[in-house]
Amino acid sequence: MEPKKIFDLSVEIKTNMPCWPTNPLVRVDPIGLLARDGYTVEKYESVTHTGTHIDAPYHMIDNGTTVDRIPLTQLAGPGYCIRPQYDGDEIHADALKKIWKREYDGKIILVNTGWDKKRGYTKEFQYEFPGFSYDAVDFLLEHKPKVLGIDTLGIDPYSHADFGVHKALLAKNMAFIEDLTNLDLLEEGKEYFVVALPLKLYGASGSMARVIAMEF
Amino acid sequence: MEPKKIFDLSVEIKTNMPCWPTNPLVRVDPIGLLARDGYTVEKYESVTHTGTHIDAPYHMIDNGTTVDRIPLTQLAGPGYCIRPQYDGDEIHADALKKIWKREYDGKIILVNTGWDKKRGYTKEFQYEFPGFSYDAVDFLLEHKPKVLGIDTLGIDPYSHADFGVHKALLAKNMAFIEDLTNLDLLEEGKEYFVVALPLKLYGASGSMARVIAMEF
Repeated sequence: MEPKKIFDLSVEIKTNMPCWPTNPLVRVDPIGLLARDGYTVEKYESVTHTGTHIDAPYHMIDNGTTVDRIPLTQLAGPGYCIRPQYDGDEIHADALKKIWKREYDGKIILVNTGWDKKRGYTKEFQYEFPGFSYDAVDFLLEHKPKVLGIDTLGIDPYSHADFGVHKALLAKNMAFIEDLTNLDLLEEGKEYFVVALPLKLYGASGSMARVIAMEF
Repeated sequence: MEPKKIFDLSVEIKTNMPCWPTNPLVRVDPIGLLARDGYTVEKYESVTHTGTHIDAPYHMIDNGTTVDRIPLTQLAGPGYCIRPQYDGDEIHADALKKIWKREYDGKIILVNTGWDKKRGYTKEFQYEFPGFSYDAVDFLLEHKPKVLGIDTLGIDPYSHADFGVHKALLAKNMAFIEDLTNLDLLEEGKEYFVVALPLKLYGASGSMARVIAMEF
């Protein structure tokens, strides 16, 4: 069983890359160099919610599931890419209703807004990205995607200072992938086999992850 | 296409866990706490070759492939677990010849030594683990596994101060997974669908990874 095609949905992680505006920056520093030491090795330093990453319920829910305990059956399985319209910085329930298909229920759902193409230290990229509206929560809970993914810095738009969408979904044991890329390469409504693997960080609220979509 | 079963082959990453003896230790430190800050988030710090991780050719080869450039087709595909005998701290070519099957050629090969069960700050776990002998290199190159994995701290035993096996295989553009766990749960010689995903660390010699094996 060889995949016919594999799409890499993960952003490159590098020193000082743009991430969540208030987070400390990433550092990847060589501490061994082949010509000097006989091998190359780096020191890596970031917050756990950096680059393409997964939010576990523990991120915002008391005693919530930690990232190392998210069942692998949630992180690997059939998935679909969708391209809902958005209004200002919000994807409303109506936009989801308009495009939702029955086969999406219970699957991994990757939301392509196109925002990853704007990556940079700009006010637009860091503060104006779209996310779900409060009224999208009920719709999403009803259709229970196993995992939601989005190609912006957050599942809530930055303007939701209370992280209301995060909290409502995490409270129901959902997990999210944030800061995806390359979703424009996936066909809307086509089934892929998606694997989203965070590091197994013991007791942590999230982790940097590598996310791929496969065609068989 | 839902996997029937998923095996997690990755060790838990936590502060001060045992890793390669001379490496700086891992730190996972909360820097945001729900009850205090409204969300939980951690700072993560380690070398790139910590816990279950992937060595890219650049680790020991001038201008070798960096971990972010390892083709995903090498990191996801059919894989097998094998349990070769070892003699002292070396798995010799003869031991591989004895158990090798034609279907292993070109696939992901995970080597179960059982060493992961000894994890701890002991001389035995950290310095006496088995790895491939120099004479195993020709055998492996001839059968070209896409990726090799092992449940010890190194593909060379620690006694190989010259990292001869690493260098010979990395020079041929192979990649390795080191410090795997739970390989005892896999049946020897049975085909699994293996996905080994390092973080996409730009220009790095390796990365912490999450590795799973699936049954369909």
